[in-house]
Amino acid sequence: MVHKYAPVDSQQSPRFTGVKTFMRLPHVRTEEEIDFAVVGVPFDTGGSFAVGTRFGPEAVRSMSSLLRPYNPGLDIDIFAYCSGVDYGDFAVNPGYIEESYQLIEEQLAKLLKHRVVPILIGGDHSVTLPHLRAMAKQYGKVSLVHFDSHGDTWDAYFGKKYTHGTVFRRAAEEELVDPSRSIQIGMRGSLYGPSDLKDGEALGYRIITTDQLRQLTPKELREAIVQRVGDNPVFVSFDVDFLDPVYAPGTGTPEIGGFATFEAQQYVRNLTGLHIVGFDVVEVLPDRDPARVTSLAAANIAYEFISLVAWGKRANGGL
Amino acid sequence: MVHKYAPVDSQQSPRFTGVKTFMRLPHVRTEEEIDFAVVGVPFDTGGSFAVGTRFGPEAVRSMSSLLRPYNPGLDIDIFAYCSGVDYGDFAVNPGYIEESYQLIEEQLAKLLKHRVVPILIGGDHSVTLPHLRAMAKQYGKVSLVHFDSHGDTWDAYFGKKYTHGTVFRRAAEEELVDPSRSIQIGMRGSLYGPSDLKDGEALGYRIITTDQLRQLTPKELREAIVQRVGDNPVFVSFDVDFLDPVYAPGTGTPEIGGFATFEAQQYVRNLTGLHIVGFDVVEVLPDRDPARVTSLAAANIAYEFISLVAWGKRANGGL
Amino acid sequence: MVHKYAPVDSQQSPRFTGVKTFMRLPHVRTEEEIDFAVVGVPFDTGGSFAVGTRFGPEAVRSMSSLLRPYNPGLDIDIFAYCSGVDYGDFAVNPGYIEESYQLIEEQLAKLLKHRVVPILIGGDHSVTLPHLRAMAKQYGKVSLVHFDSHGDTWDAYFGKKYTHGTVFRRAAEEELVDPSRSIQIGMRGSLYGPSDLKDGEALGYRIITTDQLRQLTPKELREAIVQRVGDNPVFVSFDVDFLDPVYAPGTGTPEIGGFATFEAQQYVRNLTGLHIVGFDVVEVLPDRDPARVTSLAAANIAYEFISLVAWGKRANGGL
Amino acid sequence: MVHKYAPVDSQQSPRFTGVKTFMRLPHVRTEEEIDFAVVGVPFDTGGSFAVGTRFGPEAVRSMSSLLRPYNPGLDIDIFAYCSGVDYGDFAVNPGYIEESYQLIEEQLAKLLKHRVVPILIGGDHSVTLPHLRAMAKQYGKVSLVHFDSHGDTWDAYFGKKYTHGTVFRRAAEEELVDPSRSIQIGMRGSLYGPSDLKDGEALGYRIITTDQLRQLTPKELREAIVQRVGDNPVFVSFDVDFLDPVYAPGTGTPEIGGFATFEAQQYVRNLTGLHIVGFDVVEVLPDRDPARVTSLAAANIAYEFISLVAWGKRANGGL
Amino acid sequence: MVHKYAPVDSQQSPRFTGVKTFMRLPHVRTEEEIDFAVVGVPFDTGGSFAVGTRFGPEAVRSMSSLLRPYNPGLDIDIFAYCSGVDYGDFAVNPGYIEESYQLIEEQLAKLLKHRVVPILIGGDHSVTLPHLRAMAKQYGKVSLVHFDSHGDTWDAYFGKKYTHGTVFRRAAEEELVDPSRSIQIGMRGSLYGPSDLKDGEALGYRIITTDQLRQLTPKELREAIVQRVGDNPVFVSFDVDFLDPVYAPGTGTPEIGGFATFEAQQYVRNLTGLHIVGFDVVEVLPDRDPARVTSLAAANIAYEFISLVAWGKRANGGL
Amino acid sequence: MVHKYAPVDSQQSPRFTGVKTFMRLPHVRTEEEIDFAVVGVPFDTGGSFAVGTRFGPEAVRSMSSLLRPYNPGLDIDIFAYCSGVDYGDFAVNPGYIEESYQLIEEQLAKLLKHRVVPILIGGDHSVTLPHLRAMAKQYGKVSLVHFDSHGDTWDAYFGKKYTHGTVFRRAAEEELVDPSRSIQIGMRGSLYGPSDLKDGEALGYRIITTDQLRQLTPKELREAIVQRVGDNPVFVSFDVDFLDPVYAPGTGTPEIGGFATFEAQQYVRNLTGLHIVGFDVVEVLPDRDPARVTSLAAANIAYEFISLVAWGKRANGGL
Repeated sequence: MVHKYAPVDSQQSPRFTGVKTFMRLPHVRTEEEIDFAVVGVPFDTGGSFAVGTRFGPEAVRSMSSLLRPYNPGLDIDIFAYCSGVDYGDFAVNPGYIEESYQLIEEQLAKLLKHRVVPILIGGDHSVTLPHLRAMAKQYGKVSLVHFDSHGDTWDAYFGKKYTHGTVFRRAAEEELVDPSRSIQIGMRGSLYGPSDLKDGEALGYRIITTDQLRQLTPKELREAIVQRVGDNPVFVSFDVDFLDPVYAPGTGTPEIGGFATFEAQQYVRNLTGLHIVGFDVVEVLPDRDPARVTSLAAANIAYEFISLVAWGKRANGGL
Repeated sequence: MVHKYAPVDSQQSPRFTGVKTFMRLPHVRTEEEIDFAVVGVPFDTGGSFAVGTRFGPEAVRSMSSLLRPYNPGLDIDIFAYCSGVDYGDFAVNPGYIEESYQLIEEQLAKLLKHRVVPILIGGDHSVTLPHLRAMAKQYGKVSLVHFDSHGDTWDAYFGKKYTHGTVFRRAAEEELVDPSRSIQIGMRGSLYGPSDLKDGEALGYRIITTDQLRQLTPKELREAIVQRVGDNPVFVSFDVDFLDPVYAPGTGTPEIGGFATFEAQQYVRNLTGLHIVGFDVVEVLPDRDPARVTSLAAANIAYEFISLVAWGKRANGGL
Repeated sequence: MVHKYAPVDSQQSPRFTGVKTFMRLPHVRTEEEIDFAVVGVPFDTGGSFAVGTRFGPEAVRSMSSLLRPYNPGLDIDIFAYCSGVDYGDFAVNPGYIEESYQLIEEQLAKLLKHRVVPILIGGDHSVTLPHLRAMAKQYGKVSLVHFDSHGDTWDAYFGKKYTHGTVFRRAAEEELVDPSRSIQIGMRGSLYGPSDLKDGEALGYRIITTDQLRQLTPKELREAIVQRVGDNPVFVSFDVDFLDPVYAPGTGTPEIGGFATFEAQQYVRNLTGLHIVGFDVVEVLPDRDPARVTSLAAANIAYEFISLVAWGKRANGGL
Repeated sequence: MVHKYAPVDSQQSPRFTGVKTFMRLPHVRTEEEIDFAVVGVPFDTGGSFAVGTRFGPEAVRSMSSLLRPYNPGLDIDIFAYCSGVDYGDFAVNPGYIEESYQLIEEQLAKLLKHRVVPILIGGDHSVTLPHLRAMAKQYGKVSLVHFDSHGDTWDAYFGKKYTHGTVFRRAAEEELVDPSRSIQIGMRGSLYGPSDLKDGEALGYRIITTDQLRQLTPKELREAIVQRVGDNPVFVSFDVDFLDPVYAPGTGTPEIGGFATFEAQQYVRNLTGLHIVGFDVVEVLPDRDPARVTSLAAANIAYEFISLVAWGKRANGGL
Repeated sequence: MVHKYAPVDSQQSPRFTGVKTFMRLPHVRTEEEIDFAVVGVPFDTGGSFAVGTRFGPEAVRSMSSLLRPYNPGLDIDIFAYCSGVDYGDFAVNPGYIEESYQLIEEQLAKLLKHRVVPILIGGDHSVTLPHLRAMAKQYGKVSLVHFDSHGDTWDAYFGKKYTHGTVFRRAAEEELVDPSRSIQIGMRGSLYGPSDLKDGEALGYRIITTDQLRQLTPKELREAIVQRVGDNPVFVSFDVDFLDPVYAPGTGTPEIGGFATFEAQQYVRNLTGLHIVGFDVVEVLPDRDPARVTSLAAANIAYEFISLVAWGKRANGGL
Repeated sequence: MVHKYAPVDSQQSPRFTGVKTFMRLPHVRTEEEIDFAVVGVPFDTGGSFAVGTRFGPEAVRSMSSLLRPYNPGLDIDIFAYCSGVDYGDFAVNPGYIEESYQLIEEQLAKLLKHRVVPILIGGDHSVTLPHLRAMAKQYGKVSLVHFDSHGDTWDAYFGKKYTHGTVFRRAAEEELVDPSRSIQIGMRGSLYGPSDLKDGEALGYRIITTDQLRQLTPKELREAIVQRVGDNPVFVSFDVDFLDPVYAPGTGTPEIGGFATFEAQQYVRNLTGLHIVGFDVVEVLPDRDPARVTSLAAANIAYEFISLVAWGKRANGGL
């Protein structure tokens, strides 16, 4: 492959200039000659409390201007090993969940057919269901690595099956993921009842709560994940409310007592070597993010995802 | 009637105290012994651009603490002539428009059956359709007096018929309103095409654009309205984007070049004597209202609505 | 007099530099060789709704950096005719109204003894009572010219006589002002009862409501004021809620339907030739002023006050 | 007891709907059939720096909508063991400390007489004095467990004995608390002099500074508290400035170098088994809380308090 | 010409989706087959007070999503008559004015050579100098139509000739504009001295102050402009501080007493028929624009500029 | 020396009163009878991304009102051992780096000649170059102790040698610092390439990255510093982006994964006993600091610097 697509050189034009694409990547709607594509999924009809994550991709792109191509945490010069674009946003139908699910799935399928690794930026967590539908069609049942303060395995809200709180029950029911090879990490906060956490386990997921994670080193977490997912194709879903509300106030359902970005970076960086086929980072709500720390954090999480793609390329003789 | 329900006395407990109800009215879910009920309709799935008006009722209630019971603009001591409550919010099903429409219509019907005048606080403008459905069931085809920068008579968004931009086409099609006895006031802003305004007229509405309204005195506007609606039952719908964005930045689709609150007060106060059977004020989006001027304006518009109810009571021997 | 005190030259150091004094005036606690003194009165215990005007002087000073010494509206080069300082803030005792009243009165008396014209920056409107007490001791009963959306002539709040809402009743009772030679301008907004406005008139004040003022030109307002106050010593009190909430969101009890800064400038500039012995501008609440427009407006109002001092000096052969 | 009062079911109406009460509890002014009552104490005249905590109860109620009835941290389903209401706010007299103290004490006494555990939401810290007066009348000298960055044991501000900085000196002098069985936790920040901390100890309190607390585990802190208070009736007072300013920017006198919400949760959850008869959480200042993290934190602290009430009920055979 | 470039169809993908370009135009760096190009000029080193207008283009693009292709004010369906792109931003060298001037001039020259009408979005007002340099090279001395609260004809700041306050003196000295066929509109605010306004007139400009403009109808202003500029090539420069600070708080040097967007729209729409060869709108400072009204206003001003381009095309048989 | 200058007594006038100087110190432009001077350096033309740090000194002064004279962390009553003033701001020439460098150097030299320890408050990090130029002239090559997330040792931005990102390369080249006796602490975040960190080491600096620092105790960091700087004169430069973005959102180029204020306090307090001759704290950008936590943190860092001055005085028999 010719490594064709890389960010604008910040020594030629300052980082604050230009139409805002993720990390100043070229905005090209192509599936060719790329290893990854950053895609906005500005859908927020699935939100149960505060809404407005449809503006998440814009905010994340804006703060991503600060990212530079060499990641010292993984000692990798990203674009020496891979090529990627800002693919723009998927079309969605605001106010209509099922129609939007279909639109998202179709558009994502096109990328997956070309074995492009998608870096999807929500939108609320309801979009992960069409992400997983497209994944499963391409790769079969995937392993889920899910960072979140909520398990999102409720059965329904107000009688409705599709919301940002029911995604991973649906994913299990629809056999998009293999819960027995999946893991949910970071659950905390008040619940509707004692069964809420057990429900996730009943579906087959392994759950590591915030209280449990605080007892683990990043390496130990990595081991727990590796043990769980093995060499199965993996989808990583990162809800910014995994972070503490001071690191991610701009989100729909914040829960106090969460993690710092420093910790999240460590956890994500330790996913090297997994067979990851897709990522999403969701629930950035810019209207509740006055100091922009949430979109800055999400941009950095997406950057770690891209770094993992590059790491995989290098490991497999990507150069 | 015993005039039972009136605001807490602000000489007994300061206006900043207490669980926030509209204008410090008692929060009672009753249809009895009241002339009006203030009701929140926190539904925002119909919004096409910025969303979050589900928090509109909370914000409007908060700023309404500043309202006092005597309206010098209409020289009326409201609770000498009428009784009212904060009824709370209607239940809605976020993310599901048609289900929510049904819920809203049913809950509103209960109030209308008791001839209570509802003062409905949105929510995005899509909620006006179930408001009108309930109205039409109770009163037959009503006259619409509609303050807005947009006509909201588009046919569909992305193939879908129910959004905040299609309400008054649906209302005409469903024969909930009589367009030939209705009026839309304040249209302005860029359009998708030259037919956009003509569409409303083709449906039968009379339209007074912002440019035209600037040529009229409040009295002349009143005359135009009276001529149009006669003694038909009237529903008044006030979208806060009728106001200029500096008076109402907290809204989903602001349009520059709009009206001041001073003007809006004059227009609404001149609706005395109409046979008004219901009101709504919609599209308050608190997350985009950092100085709270939008919710303050909306609280005052709702207050003028209540004053009109009291005025009607007095005119009809309400004492 | 040697004209000693004038702002720092903005061609020598940019306007954003330096410890923030009003209009970049020297901060000197002197009563000598000055015509006016800008003084902060950071007291807000008298506020009945939103509080925090203790930070008003700081915010007004910050935005006053933008002011330049020549006022084209009055065609006057201020420091060609007068000398002034930023005197700093009066000491107050937060939480204790009567003690603070005494402190304020004593500190102000010192300035008045030297015939310095004070430009007082609140603080909430309760501080105008000690301002008037000091004024009356020095000058006898003064004429009040009062711009506000509220008359502030309530008798008591919760049984207490000293708050920001009772100041001008107290001032009349204590014979600090001569209501028969005083005027209140701009009253509007909902009231507790129909008697609220009549109360002010019963005390002897002339009241021009917002509705009435909208029918007058600035010249006609000037005539009404001149006719009322004659050549009596005048105290001008400007509550920023005279302005519409979009021009002054940062205030404790905003009322919609108010005036623009353009209008306020005209009204104040038309006070030339009156025998004004003191000014205050009150009720700036920075924590509710996210775009800083309120403190910018208040700084400009204070600037017009200073311009009036210079105008008087020039008229009386000040050069 | 019939367990009568519990939150609205969030599966019936979404959490963003309804008049905002704490945790969506019914707003009933009753002392009967309840174990606890959440009460707002919107008084802020005692604040020495930034003010506006009178809006604290409203902000805390707003964010408390996110709370769910099962607390996994204590493994307790709250309303299986207890009943509670949002009692509304106590009436206060803004600007008048001593009168407000009397009002607060009287209203609280009524609840205590019925052995209801109050969860009081300030307001500035000056309100804890009337809280303790009522407590002491009901229970005799109580033990204080006090989380704060300041000891609040100054003697006076500007000659005045009642402010938010003198509460716990007054409480000791008035013999409302037994300092020898009380503890102050979290003191840090610059002081007026080296004696400031020693003053608290001279009054008899045990003080654990922030520096000391960082050396303790939550269990060790618990032991220190238990050892101190024994089985005495305990009042827990939590000033949000115990938290670091990034977790609680919305407060009057923030001090850097403080605790995370994660830590505070651990400390409070470890108070199980104490004989707690009342709680307050104070100093939430919404106008300085743009991302709402402070009110979210305070709502969660109050939630932990309620959980402790439920825990006590269960432990004593509450079911 | 084939009309090639027009906005994305908002019936296909909602207006909130996609990489943010002005008005959802394609982002293509071409000079071919276009009538106009929207270009960001993110340079702010020339600002004398608040800075940060380098983020102006991003903010204006964001709010421009709300614009639709038909302008009812001029009754024109823009893309029926013309083609245009979002050209992206010009490269600049932050911190280095003269180097940036050269960069801007060169990049703009390329567009002008193809007779593309540039719609330039600042940046601070210092960028208008290189705009005019490029204009003059292409078209000879142009006529300036300049909307602003400041004349920007100071000689120097701190000894330096290039800042946002000296642009139009430099432009006259460098013979880029013909002052005798140019006009400055809207000057107001305090000045450094009485000569400040006369200086502009001494350079040959006609000045219409804010006070004078308030006496003119939009038609009368048009006549004054037409009389001045005749059929000379015109450059229109619009500083958002022409607007009142409530309409444009997000700017470096706001002046109270300014114009509403309604008025500005009228003034700009009345420029039809002039031979306009370029436009800029400058001084949008997003960090001081919490409610985004400034960037919304600027987006609309740029939209009126584009509409004038289309109007000219239609008038000249553009179809 | 007579210890002449100390803060206003906060028992006499509340901390929120008065013209805002750092820590309520007297604002006197003297070099006599003082041990330290707090100086604002409001220059921000060197910023490569977000700008506006010219308002940093104002914001830091505002929050510094909260500081009290006894520092329990170092057990020192500052003004028992030293005297200091708020010297105001240095004059700068915005938009002109080299001219401003010269101005800053000259003004600082005057203080250094009197052996006053400067506490300099930026401004962006580009100002540290003139700080070091003045230092080197007075003291010879100094040792640098540099807290930052960036090394600021790039060679140039867009061909220009003076920006906030090139300062410490210039300082080495100009032989202002002795890199072999200097240390840079806290580097993290994405880079332009793998050589970025090595570049600093190639210049001779020792670098302790964030990842490395997390493995050290404050004592161990102290040892590393002491070993490096010995008894050489030391200049301490603290960029607030050393802190995590949640502690310092108000800065130009935030990097996630940083330090808490608690940690920064520990690191700075452990600098006792070094021969420190000057300090700066830079990169506070108030327009991006909505909760004011950044300026609060910076004020506290400056306070620790002053405490170190006092500690030194005490150690050397300062009393």
